[in-house]
Amino acid sequence: MKIPSKHIENVVEQLSSLPGIGKRTALRLALNLLNRSKEEVSTFAHSFLEMKQYVQKCSGCGNVSDTPVCSICSNPSRDHSTVCVVEDIRDILAIEATESYKGVYHVLGAIISPMDGIGPNDLNIDPLIEKAASGNVNEIIFALSATMEGDTTNYYLFKKINSFPVQITSLSRGVAIGSELQYADELTLGRSILNRQPFKIQG
Amino acid sequence: MKIPSKHIENVVEQLSSLPGIGKRTALRLALNLLNRSKEEVSTFAHSFLEMKQYVQKCSGCGNVSDTPVCSICSNPSRDHSTVCVVEDIRDILAIEATESYKGVYHVLGAIISPMDGIGPNDLNIDPLIEKAASGNVNEIIFALSATMEGDTTNYYLFKKINSFPVQITSLSRGVAIGSELQYADELTLGRSILNRQPFKIQG
Ligand SMILES: [Zn+2]
Ligand SMILES: [Zn+2]
Repeated sequence: MKIPSKHIENVVEQLSSLPGIGKRTALRLALNLLNRSKEEVSTFAHSFLEMKQYVQKCSGCGNVSDTPVCSICSNPSRDHSTVCVVEDIRDILAIEATESYKGVYHVLGAIISPMDGIGPNDLNIDPLIEKAASGNVNEIIFALSATMEGDTTNYYLFKKINSFPVQITSLSRGVAIGSELQYADELTLGRSILNRQPFKIQG
Repeated sequence: MKIPSKHIENVVEQLSSLPGIGKRTALRLALNLLNRSKEEVSTFAHSFLEMKQYVQKCSGCGNVSDTPVCSICSNPSRDHSTVCVVEDIRDILAIEATESYKGVYHVLGAIISPMDGIGPNDLNIDPLIEKAASGNVNEIIFALSATMEGDTTNYYLFKKINSFPVQITSLSRGVAIGSELQYADELTLGRSILNRQPFKIQG
């Protein structure tokens, strides 16, 4: 595919660097943008610059936030003694949508995946250990995907915080094995968090 | 889906304005970008601004180009008396990839589609009529999609340029090379038998 414009080619290269976007799709998107007004393209482009400039990590949970502390961590009616450990913001959105959970969160940012070169050091783990050691947390819920990577990460975290006086639970396996958390339907996910179980090392 | 950042929400809105990108996919892409460095996000965003600023329409054919006249129109070894009418640049890329065509192109930019509110006035038609009237063009090839919209547009163009001394042809339609007859759809097969050609030994 030889695109007769290096500027369009640059856009295609940038768009196809995104997960799940191939060159052909990227070209379709680039041409769609090219047909828009200068103002519309400017608004499009600047949304990315502003996101990168202004979005912070909540100092409480690691969730993305427009403020130093996110709306969940700063909400006094949430139960701050219960911490739900998730991979990223999409899992928080999925759990919040169930309206079944009133605790707070801890965002790891990733899960251990040797295949993708992601090790424990790439995860936001130390603040979780501090929370477990603080004496202010009664329960830590593992809410990672029901995949091998999720299980590996659960195991690693369990070893790190097992010695502290905190109850460790995990989502009940209503979530289908092998499926990613964010794609679970609301009912399954809601039940799964209500029926959470004490965490046990498998096998 | 209540995203806890208006900056991320803006990006999701912008990305999901693109064809085929839903809110969920847009959020995945937004988070992928958020995890990149400031420099990478800047490069990403500026690619769109530069494309909009610098990409022109070729004065010869209406194709996208970084220069006032595109590389095909400015190529003296192309046959400028044969003009292939296409919907957009992607069709040019597809035809160029076949290495079967040595003429030039005329890009309509769209095809007539009443369902999408696209009428003849939204197409780049006048310069095509001028070409047909110029006396410098021997053949105009209709190479639009084999859809109702493509047929409607062919019919409209034919009425506009039929009176000029220029041969009007269209891409042959029929059973795709390499495909089995029994799997061809009825419409294609029907046209294919009606438009049957004198048999020739392929050299
Ligand atoms: Zn927070
Ligand atoms: Zn041209």
